[in-house]
Amino acid sequence: MTSARVLLKDELDIVIPTIRNLDFLEMWRPFFQPYHLIIVQDGDPSKTIKVPDGFDYELYNRNDINRILGPKASCISFKDSACRCFGYMVSKKKYIYTIDDDCFVATDPSGAKINALAQHIQNLLCPSTPYFFNTLYEPYREGADFVRGYPFSLREGVPTAVSHGLWLNIPDYDAPTQLVKPLERNTRYVDAIMTIPKGTLFPMCGMNLAFDRDLIGPAMYFGLMGDGQPIGRYDDMWAGWCCKVICDHLGLGIKTGLPYIYHSKASNPFVNLRKEYKGIFWQEDIIPFFQNVVLSKEATTVQKCYVELAKLVKDKLSKVDPYFDKLAEAMVTWIEAWDDLNPPAKSNANGKA
Amino acid sequence: MTSARVLLKDELDIVIPTIRNLDFLEMWRPFFQPYHLIIVQDGDPSKTIKVPDGFDYELYNRNDINRILGPKASCISFKDSACRCFGYMVSKKKYIYTIDDDCFVATDPSGAKINALAQHIQNLLCPSTPYFFNTLYEPYREGADFVRGYPFSLREGVPTAVSHGLWLNIPDYDAPTQLVKPLERNTRYVDAIMTIPKGTLFPMCGMNLAFDRDLIGPAMYFGLMGDGQPIGRYDDMWAGWCCKVICDHLGLGIKTGLPYIYHSKASNPFVNLRKEYKGIFWQEDIIPFFQNVVLSKEATTVQKCYVELAKLVKDKLSKVDPYFDKLAEAMVTWIEAWDDLNPPAKSNANGKA
Repeated sequence: MTSARVLLKDELDIVIPTIRNLDFLEMWRPFFQPYHLIIVQDGDPSKTIKVPDGFDYELYNRNDINRILGPKASCISFKDSACRCFGYMVSKKKYIYTIDDDCFVATDPSGAKINALAQHIQNLLCPSTPYFFNTLYEPYREGADFVRGYPFSLREGVPTAVSHGLWLNIPDYDAPTQLVKPLERNTRYVDAIMTIPKGTLFPMCGMNLAFDRDLIGPAMYFGLMGDGQPIGRYDDMWAGWCCKVICDHLGLGIKTGLPYIYHSKASNPFVNLRKEYKGIFWQEDIIPFFQNVVLSKEATTVQKCYVELAKLVKDKLSKVDPYFDKLAEAMVTWIEAWDDLNPPAKSNANGKA
Repeated sequence: MTSARVLLKDELDIVIPTIRNLDFLEMWRPFFQPYHLIIVQDGDPSKTIKVPDGFDYELYNRNDINRILGPKASCISFKDSACRCFGYMVSKKKYIYTIDDDCFVATDPSGAKINALAQHIQNLLCPSTPYFFNTLYEPYREGADFVRGYPFSLREGVPTAVSHGLWLNIPDYDAPTQLVKPLERNTRYVDAIMTIPKGTLFPMCGMNLAFDRDLIGPAMYFGLMGDGQPIGRYDDMWAGWCCKVICDHLGLGIKTGLPYIYHSKASNPFVNLRKEYKGIFWQEDIIPFFQNVVLSKEATTVQKCYVELAKLVKDKLSKVDPYFDKLAEAMVTWIEAWDDLNPPAKSNANGKA
């Protein structure tokens, strides 16, 4: 059992994409105030975003993004929460937690407030077990272990790169499901954390997500969405598919399950349908593409994996829609911008500049 | 959401391996009494096993097994609960539930008694989703669904062949873990059911297990264990590995999670260590073997898959130990005996003779 450790301020940043005043932070104050916030303001840069007193933060609007990245700012989405990945790029910390501004503190079945960030940190500091399924879920939790029949050679696990948290109240459904089940609420608190097995893809939601920036940061690109793009609401999905195949290739783990946040507001299903409908169609080709991705032995870093993946996207998905040509180019631009802001020497020193 | 259905007596048998009086059935009476029991008496056949009044059952001891199978009885283990698979073979029902006689009715967090059998039936009657991971677990449960980003083409799922239930109180640990953590008890009720993804192996425990005999029965062979064999406590593991690769090949699903039973009695860790130690060693070769099994296109039935697998076991695992030569032969004998007792015409009619 890896004991929980409190991360220091110089180890973790909280990244929040937003278009409005961040009143939701009041509820998170006891948990977030010790950390630094990176706020990525979406939409009209002349608007002022109010942040509650007492939080330590930096805020970037579109003008800042354009100024910092120059022509490479084209890879950062506008008018879509995909813009959050700019925050991953400018952070210099080892760990990132990202959360939407309509996510509140959930309570566990005992009525206690859930410190989502602390659980994510614990998930990231414990190994993952992608090569064999443990039927009692996370083997490193207190009161649990590997069950009979679990090979001993696999019990050390692998480093955890991503911790994917879940949502009580409004579930993360697509527009068709929202339309069909407008009243469905998630009230089931499942007390589990698990590693997503190697070779299995999953739908990664960006609402309540933490990751190790040193291990997987350059693959956490949220794609081209929103303004001027034919698609929205697939930013986190895209990042999840890319991260999963790269984690599988590099021997890293992705966990899902706890912690829960309380998701307060369902987005408009009609608007979502307009954003999603091409994605719903395209994902029928995208999923088999990712299921069959094979990265080369030469792809030994996340950057190399990601550039190789961009080439495969261009080769195999452009025939689905010319959009994927653009996306493949943006993937390369993203890596160039990442390396500009994070020169290798810094990255090798665990992100501590 | 597939609605729960009550299975009829001619659809399901309960298989119980035992060496003692079945007093534990008293607690299960409200749930089990509507069904037929197949009791497989292990050890000394001259001993009388007492079954509480009011249960409908048939009982087989070693003499019965020898009489019914003749020389093919060699494939059925003696002095090991692996003998239970004889019950799968003589049943003529579509569904099997098997449970150990030290497993009692558990309670859920609300204090309600859990009807494990009803939950298994529901698991088996709902499809499985082995091709993509659903982060909100079983998508067919009430209050749940497929999340955003789950391909629509995969939402029909595939037929479920196996339902693997879990254990509160005494967890199913191997001997080394039992020795290291003698006091550990599983008190975590995880309210989840999930499909084990395609390509992922898991440690299947036979303590609380249900399956569709028509879909996977001939692969539910519990191997050669106990008396005269160099190994024990790997019977269910062996069956699980074989079933998983065959389910993956045939497009069938395996679920794990709910229902829980209350496991009352930890077996002796010193005895277990003696039974297990070769398995602990061998599984380091067995797992990679199963991870790399490829069955041919011609293997279109469970029987054909299983015979092909037996050949691969002989070819690849005999070098680990001559035991696997014997096991491979027993696997073929098992299929022959299965087909003797279950002529194809009957099997094709959904097991209803």
